[in-house]
Amino acid sequence: MARVTGSGPRLYERARARIPGGTQVLSKRPEMFLPGAWPSYYARAKGVEVWDLDGNRFVDMSTNGVGVNVLGYADEDVNAAVKEALDRGHVSTLNCPEEVELAETLCRLHPWADMVRFCRGGGEATAMAVRIARAKTGRDKVAFCGYHGWTDWYLAANLGGDALQGHLLPGLDPAGVPRGLRGTALPFRYNRPDELESILSANRGEIAAVITEPIRGEAPRPGFLEAVRDRAHEEGAVFIFDEVTAAWRANTGGYHRLFGVDPDLAAFSKAMGNGHPIAAVAGRREVMEAAQATFISSTNWTERVGPAAALATIRKHERMGVPRHLARVGNLVKSGWQKAASAAGLEIQVGGIDPLANFRFVCDEPDAARTLFTKAMLEEGFLAGGACYASFAHTERHVEAYLAAVEMAFRRIADGLSRKDLASALGGPTAHSGFRRLA
Amino acid sequence: MARVTGSGPRLYERARARIPGGTQVLSKRPEMFLPGAWPSYYARAKGVEVWDLDGNRFVDMSTNGVGVNVLGYADEDVNAAVKEALDRGHVSTLNCPEEVELAETLCRLHPWADMVRFCRGGGEATAMAVRIARAKTGRDKVAFCGYHGWTDWYLAANLGGDALQGHLLPGLDPAGVPRGLRGTALPFRYNRPDELESILSANRGEIAAVITEPIRGEAPRPGFLEAVRDRAHEEGAVFIFDEVTAAWRANTGGYHRLFGVDPDLAAFSKAMGNGHPIAAVAGRREVMEAAQATFISSTNWTERVGPAAALATIRKHERMGVPRHLARVGNLVKSGWQKAASAAGLEIQVGGIDPLANFRFVCDEPDAARTLFTKAMLEEGFLAGGACYASFAHTERHVEAYLAAVEMAFRRIADGLSRKDLASALGGPTAHSGFRRLA
Repeated sequence: MARVTGSGPRLYERARARIPGGTQVLSKRPEMFLPGAWPSYYARAKGVEVWDLDGNRFVDMSTNGVGVNVLGYADEDVNAAVKEALDRGHVSTLNCPEEVELAETLCRLHPWADMVRFCRGGGEATAMAVRIARAKTGRDKVAFCGYHGWTDWYLAANLGGDALQGHLLPGLDPAGVPRGLRGTALPFRYNRPDELESILSANRGEIAAVITEPIRGEAPRPGFLEAVRDRAHEEGAVFIFDEVTAAWRANTGGYHRLFGVDPDLAAFSKAMGNGHPIAAVAGRREVMEAAQATFISSTNWTERVGPAAALATIRKHERMGVPRHLARVGNLVKSGWQKAASAAGLEIQVGGIDPLANFRFVCDEPDAARTLFTKAMLEEGFLAGGACYASFAHTERHVEAYLAAVEMAFRRIADGLSRKDLASALGGPTAHSGFRRLA
Repeated sequence: MARVTGSGPRLYERARARIPGGTQVLSKRPEMFLPGAWPSYYARAKGVEVWDLDGNRFVDMSTNGVGVNVLGYADEDVNAAVKEALDRGHVSTLNCPEEVELAETLCRLHPWADMVRFCRGGGEATAMAVRIARAKTGRDKVAFCGYHGWTDWYLAANLGGDALQGHLLPGLDPAGVPRGLRGTALPFRYNRPDELESILSANRGEIAAVITEPIRGEAPRPGFLEAVRDRAHEEGAVFIFDEVTAAWRANTGGYHRLFGVDPDLAAFSKAMGNGHPIAAVAGRREVMEAAQATFISSTNWTERVGPAAALATIRKHERMGVPRHLARVGNLVKSGWQKAASAAGLEIQVGGIDPLANFRFVCDEPDAARTLFTKAMLEEGFLAGGACYASFAHTERHVEAYLAAVEMAFRRIADGLSRKDLASALGGPTAHSGFRRLA
């Protein structure tokens, strides 16, 4: 049984004194998993194994780097490409040829796209896509569906409302977002073309872009994505897929390729570089050329490791048939969850595409149940929560051992629920389920 | 004599078909140096040496990675730290301890700062600082001096005007920046406290932040930075130094430490990671805590190579006394330019702090003269333009050889000018001096 307290939680105490909010991304905040006891920091990671600062080993059956590690941690092929980039100089006054090769590769994988610009993160990429769409159309308003990052254009949706509920988080205060952006970001729900229609008819001639994740928790209903595309175009708006999360899961490239619905622009990041900071906006020439009419420029976007890592990741992704493996892992995990829940007499709701599977407890205290799940799994040597993002480094043995532990954890939760005493079974605070200020 | 045409310019033709604007940062656009003949791409870089795609070797006496490479290309110590981060896994679901150590290091170097957040680029860092200042004050307007990146908050200055002239570029169309931001970014010139005063008195109680580079082409006049700080505070605004360019040149840390004027927030990037994408906003606790009131979160900000590279860079920077070396190189270069100009009978104007030296030709065709300078220097094996950013890898021999070539180039330019025929001496198009749409 692995120790669940120690150097990591202590380092996190230091971090909270030095880093407002404790971490750089909400999804890696220890309070989201197991307050006070989550290992929080890693010394080493390889494949799907993670060693904490005290040398405890865990198998990562949670988000595998919030979805960046499709190939697994410290992948040999990506590391070799990156080390070569380091030895040959990872930056200079001249440009790296890898960025041209990566642009050509993205256009090969997405035949509708002609041109590409790069940056370093997902939020940055959607901000770039929206800038280009606004420059192209001369309009300011954006209709959106889903989560698109931390920047002003998106959080503006909550100026004077709670529009981001259901897309990002409920009750998010858009503090620090200029009030002049009020009314510029307008939400519609997935599979609700009527909501998009309401936005378009109330803002005729003013919508610069319609942006959506290609898939959310549910599959697109027949005709939904086609309608979004067609209506965007009829209104003269740029149609954008935010592929930051979904791409590189079910196929090599954007998830939208599975549906045969092509956008004008698509934003990529996360798994594209197997965790190295790289992001891209790919698009049709007539839209992308608008990037030349505005100032989109940053020194660190030219660094070589990012595109070198992305090229190595994409090559291996294609060569090894990674998507088949991710689908099989996700499918096993999902059916295992259902089986374990039935055996324990628990009700759960399973969602997400197979490579990005998630579940939630349907019971009186779902947050306490999830926290106890994480605690019980940690004791068995697994990083685990309400989501399991598949990695090419997950083997069937990993999944089998994980599901055996899930069965035990689910029984423990069912037992606590039947005694109406999850709290004492947990013996500590409940995990956060969203954004919360840390005291 | 190095060949000046070849595979690089040919690859750039391919890039222009796939990347709007050709490159990811304006300052690495070949047209900014020598249209059609600049090597454009590098195969390898080490120290201050750069090899192009045809194996031609150049000594970089230009911007050394637009200012990121204070230690030199492919620095052994930074590479060793990064390779260790790769072997130990450069990302995981858990956080990397290096980000806590880097936060503590930045606070040690800047005793006025208590807390730090990280991101990956300079423009991103100033956007984060402005978000925090707006969240802290509940106000939207920003008074600024200098260049602060590509994002909306800054480019909004040009909505309805040409406010960025003298700070970024003249005549920049803020295409794609929402019109609701008009009037939210207000410029004042360096050493012009009267201009800041006008902004403050016309926008009483509305200024969220006053942001300036700590130093521009000229040194601060006595009392200028103190006045900016004090007036910002009197008006309840957050005082921010943009240290993206100036930091890590004259000292280990922010340039403002030389002046004894401390801000509430400071933004860092560029040289901090010797070219690896890493950036930071450091600040006083009471301001930084406002970051918790708003959503500032991105997955790629958590990656390990960035902070590992920054820690290795800062350690070496302190240990080796890098700033003394940069000052000496810059000083030699500046005086060499003057001497060569006098010898050739050319008039030039030298500016910038010593580690970020620049000059411009004072003559009838300054752009043609600069282009011919770059052409002549390239033929002698140097990457060179109107700016020379010093690197720890520059030796006195590099500088001596460079200055000998500068003398020849200046004579060639003087000769062309005296015959009123720079154009035929150049034999090709003139370099761009700013932002221009590529046909």
